[in-house]
Amino acid sequence: MTTMTTMTNMLALDIPGLSASHYALIYNLFSLVFAAMTFTALYLLVSRNTVAPAYRTAVTVSAMVCSIAAYHYFRIFENFRDAYPGGASTGAAHLLSSVRFNEGYRYVDWLLTVPLLLVETIAVLALAKSEQKSLLWKLVPAATLMILLGYPGEVANTNGPRVVWGLASTVPFLYVVYVLFKELGASLERQPADVRHTVSMLRLAILGLWGVYPIAYLFPVFGGSFFGGEGGFVLRQSGYSIADILAKAAFGLVIFKIAKAKSAYDDPTLAVAH
Amino acid sequence: MTTMTTMTNMLALDIPGLSASHYALIYNLFSLVFAAMTFTALYLLVSRNTVAPAYRTAVTVSAMVCSIAAYHYFRIFENFRDAYPGGASTGAAHLLSSVRFNEGYRYVDWLLTVPLLLVETIAVLALAKSEQKSLLWKLVPAATLMILLGYPGEVANTNGPRVVWGLASTVPFLYVVYVLFKELGASLERQPADVRHTVSMLRLAILGLWGVYPIAYLFPVFGGSFFGGEGGFVLRQSGYSIADILAKAAFGLVIFKIAKAKSAYDDPTLAVAH
Repeated sequence: MTTMTTMTNMLALDIPGLSASHYALIYNLFSLVFAAMTFTALYLLVSRNTVAPAYRTAVTVSAMVCSIAAYHYFRIFENFRDAYPGGASTGAAHLLSSVRFNEGYRYVDWLLTVPLLLVETIAVLALAKSEQKSLLWKLVPAATLMILLGYPGEVANTNGPRVVWGLASTVPFLYVVYVLFKELGASLERQPADVRHTVSMLRLAILGLWGVYPIAYLFPVFGGSFFGGEGGFVLRQSGYSIADILAKAAFGLVIFKIAKAKSAYDDPTLAVAH
Repeated sequence: MTTMTTMTNMLALDIPGLSASHYALIYNLFSLVFAAMTFTALYLLVSRNTVAPAYRTAVTVSAMVCSIAAYHYFRIFENFRDAYPGGASTGAAHLLSSVRFNEGYRYVDWLLTVPLLLVETIAVLALAKSEQKSLLWKLVPAATLMILLGYPGEVANTNGPRVVWGLASTVPFLYVVYVLFKELGASLERQPADVRHTVSMLRLAILGLWGVYPIAYLFPVFGGSFFGGEGGFVLRQSGYSIADILAKAAFGLVIFKIAKAKSAYDDPTLAVAH
């Protein structure tokens, strides 16, 4: 694994076939993500006027993140069905057709949603304009760069570029973590105690959930009959799907909860209103 | 039926064909569920502002439950048509194609809707924040676990795992019932008399309606030419469809009725307003 020869071995990115039960599992998971994103977006849009105007941008952006992800999961779902059509009978394996399962497509989603997730996190704090602007000018370009640098590694079919681009992508990720934990820390001091606690949790959630993606990214590098084959594919799709639900839909609902709590803190009459 | 040999017999999960009239019955029922869910969701969304702000979350969540179910019934309907395409003539049986009727797919719906049904039930009571939080932290994880444990049993093609996972899933179900009847009882004391009565009925409805699902789940275990075959399939799909309409759409409308009654009780001017 550590020699240069192994590093340039071809990766088995196109999984030749999936068992009927693996196919059904991924099909069900992709549809679950689509439903979770769509109806979280709808819920947030319908409910945004129940928070004070200062926090509505955060709720709207959360709804947009879920809407964008819903659209992409619809496409991923369709692509998956085209790539692995039904076999000769209901129990037969689903063999790869001439349509590739377009893994790089997730990056199109992330390029839009990952910077926006940072925007909603900062927006819900309703910081002073200059402070907010300074944080966003650091976080958004770093998050965009992180996704852009991951893409060439994801579509590479040898280990070498996958590892190199992966490492390059880690640099802006670490910078995002630095800004969230170091620079945002100062702003948090001025938040009410329960909001400070929730945002602290939010920050840990970003660190923990975003950590799932590089692990799934590295599966083909781990190689072997499991990680390099059908088992690794199923685990990677499951991991991305569950991480996406938590990092976008569940995260958006937590942002909404913080917006409600802060609205009630700013204006106690809102506390009973909803 | 009780010997281990029978327990591990293969279950006929893929029904090889449906008569034209059975096909039409299920087709019509699936479409009925889709329509009931879609337009109940629309009605609730349009009407949510007619209840006091404190009860709007309950109405919004009810609308989301119906929307999520509508989406899944749309997919189930499409999957059913793909699995059982038309035969050689209008009266001919619809034989199973290479596309499996994906029964496990219902679990994707339930994973989202069943915990949300408990959220709407608790939300409409507008309890003290701490009381509501404590109930939801018990009910939502238990309901999620109940669905997750049912899935491996539903997709198993032998009796043994179907019974074992079914029993495992019953444990969190009984816990949900315990929380609803025992712990919620205390909170109900403080509700107005007519609301107390309606919520009592609601709770019985949950117990009764949710009881339909494990019975339908067990059909393949009952076995025999009826329950293990086409007749059992038709009865199971009909049972799930009717139970879904009652447990989600009709239930959502009852939640809305309670929200209206409580709004009028809190502020009698609302009683005539709508």
